[in-house]
Amino acid sequence: MLGNKIITLTTDFGYRDSYVGTMKGVILSQHRDVTIVDITHGITSHSVLEASFALTGSYAYFPEGTLHVVVVDPGVGGTRRIIYLENSGHRFLAPDNGVLSGMLKDADLIYSIENEEHFLPKVSHTFHGRDIFAPLAAKLCAGLDPAELGPRLEDAYELEWPEPGVEKGSVEGCVLYIDVFGNLVTNIKTSHLTSLSSKATVFLKGDEIGSPRRSYVACETGAVLALINSYGLLEIAVREGSAEQRFSAGTGDEVIVSNLS
Amino acid sequence: MLGNKIITLTTDFGYRDSYVGTMKGVILSQHRDVTIVDITHGITSHSVLEASFALTGSYAYFPEGTLHVVVVDPGVGGTRRIIYLENSGHRFLAPDNGVLSGMLKDADLIYSIENEEHFLPKVSHTFHGRDIFAPLAAKLCAGLDPAELGPRLEDAYELEWPEPGVEKGSVEGCVLYIDVFGNLVTNIKTSHLTSLSSKATVFLKGDEIGSPRRSYVACETGAVLALINSYGLLEIAVREGSAEQRFSAGTGDEVIVSNLS
Amino acid sequence: MLGNKIITLTTDFGYRDSYVGTMKGVILSQHRDVTIVDITHGITSHSVLEASFALTGSYAYFPEGTLHVVVVDPGVGGTRRIIYLENSGHRFLAPDNGVLSGMLKDADLIYSIENEEHFLPKVSHTFHGRDIFAPLAAKLCAGLDPAELGPRLEDAYELEWPEPGVEKGSVEGCVLYIDVFGNLVTNIKTSHLTSLSSKATVFLKGDEIGSPRRSYVACETGAVLALINSYGLLEIAVREGSAEQRFSAGTGDEVIVSNLS
Repeated sequence: MLGNKIITLTTDFGYRDSYVGTMKGVILSQHRDVTIVDITHGITSHSVLEASFALTGSYAYFPEGTLHVVVVDPGVGGTRRIIYLENSGHRFLAPDNGVLSGMLKDADLIYSIENEEHFLPKVSHTFHGRDIFAPLAAKLCAGLDPAELGPRLEDAYELEWPEPGVEKGSVEGCVLYIDVFGNLVTNIKTSHLTSLSSKATVFLKGDEIGSPRRSYVACETGAVLALINSYGLLEIAVREGSAEQRFSAGTGDEVIVSNLS
Repeated sequence: MLGNKIITLTTDFGYRDSYVGTMKGVILSQHRDVTIVDITHGITSHSVLEASFALTGSYAYFPEGTLHVVVVDPGVGGTRRIIYLENSGHRFLAPDNGVLSGMLKDADLIYSIENEEHFLPKVSHTFHGRDIFAPLAAKLCAGLDPAELGPRLEDAYELEWPEPGVEKGSVEGCVLYIDVFGNLVTNIKTSHLTSLSSKATVFLKGDEIGSPRRSYVACETGAVLALINSYGLLEIAVREGSAEQRFSAGTGDEVIVSNLS
Repeated sequence: MLGNKIITLTTDFGYRDSYVGTMKGVILSQHRDVTIVDITHGITSHSVLEASFALTGSYAYFPEGTLHVVVVDPGVGGTRRIIYLENSGHRFLAPDNGVLSGMLKDADLIYSIENEEHFLPKVSHTFHGRDIFAPLAAKLCAGLDPAELGPRLEDAYELEWPEPGVEKGSVEGCVLYIDVFGNLVTNIKTSHLTSLSSKATVFLKGDEIGSPRRSYVACETGAVLALINSYGLLEIAVREGSAEQRFSAGTGDEVIVSNLS
């Protein structure tokens, strides 16, 4: 498959330390002929939910066969498992902390990583990205049979994803993620809105935003609007500005869509 | 040409969201055999001028044939065109919002992207980087004839670039860009200074900086100096310090070079 | 060797300017068939010590033959030399400002770069990363004999690395580096602690932290602990929190390990 020698990395290691570079060194030491792509290393420290959100929105745009490695791992050195998962031709390697929640439902197979033979010779208690994830990723891209990694699992840890409440005439959700532009991405999907009028009004913490528009340029520069974003999620934005700043908004803030205005 | 399978990316997508990773996934899905190089994703949100500055200083150092993709696109989803441009063996794909101003004068050809056949099947109104720019970039590197993209244009949108005023005995410009070191890069080029004495004095917001020196180490650590930087632009710096902090400086601040001191 | 066509980059150029992208353009213009890996560009401006720390912890995880290029270069344009160094199959190109201190002791050979033939035709006084380091790196990966670069050196500039004081019953060191998680990495190595009891207590600026634990999960979420990190250095951390914030800590802060509690 086209993606067989592509590894993506999603971590909370940031861009100042040498952790990510070191992982890439280990990968290239084990398998010279892979293409490594950063999804992001800017995940908030230890935020499994944020990493899950980033990966879920991104992975399907890579070629089938791609191996997606996630190292957002607050339980490193403890008893949490590491899992390998396949879903519709995509491969994932991650701590079993819920970061792969979005891929569990349709998973084709899951293995618990227990065979230490393919780890670095000396495994630290604090940096499994370097000592376990990187060498395994390289070897899986070199053709290692995942069945050699450990026993098959029937299930894995699942995050409690904040689901919106859908009632007659209204949907109550929240801000799930805020992007670099200060756009407020909610947990309300197009599918949650089907029973509402297309003129239903969006409210952020009680402030009326209006009905969802088609794109950012549907209003004046500096004006506030709601829209369905490129991931099919309701989003509140300020054209060429920051809704985060305008509303002093944060994740978890209440967002309501209602037929009543 | 050496650069035929190199794609550079310049965006304001930052390093926290998965937008850039997603674009790379789309590119690799369409054409596995390209090399993707980040010029920067740290452009200030929606700053077309800053992106233009970054690209103008960088592109010519890449091999001929390289395709430079810019997605700083405040007009996404609106009526702004997307253009493909060739200039001296370099190729560019960008919104027609002035970000390619520096390449217009000597452009060999410009096309308006109108043929939707090579876009992703479903095009969002908010993320053309993923849905239009990435697949087109991949296909252009795979040999797609740019003439298939749409009609030829004679001209494109041009930024009003802040040009310095040149008078007898003095040049009046401004701070155009501030880099990671806090160096104040101005819009004053070597060519603007040719009529002045080599002893002409630089002033920042009225503060006397002195005559341009040869390099940062021409003064003591912590001292202020002016010099001609590696892009041929007048720059005000503090050796091993930050001129931005020292002078509470910002883009647009007045810089004058004068024969009178 | 496996790493012969791998170049790593470690700089203080950040992620906002186009400096790093430009260097990559020069490298690919000179030698299309190299793999470029970022170790980090997030080094604090002009911090030779921080760059040395990042590189020392990372380089050995790359394949032998890899060329490690460091451009943290406050002396650019002055009289500092540029050196090429080989150590145990690894290759380094850096300013002679101490950034390679960790590689000096076992260096197999060092050259002073004096032959300008392989530089870019026009060398600026402020951006040797682009004009000297990048083209040399590409050509070294293409097989240029390093003996052609300049005369052999017997020694190079060495940093005064802050070494801990080891006494009977106690070790006195300091915080050397703070990572993205707010973990306080000290200059105290496992080898400094061998004469102490395994129950010896760690103190940060007088605050008792306790004896080193096995991993972050050895205490409750939010609790403070000391441990030996993945580089063999004593570290003070807060589980899923920031020790930097908890203690308002900074580099240079006193850390003592003592048999007396």
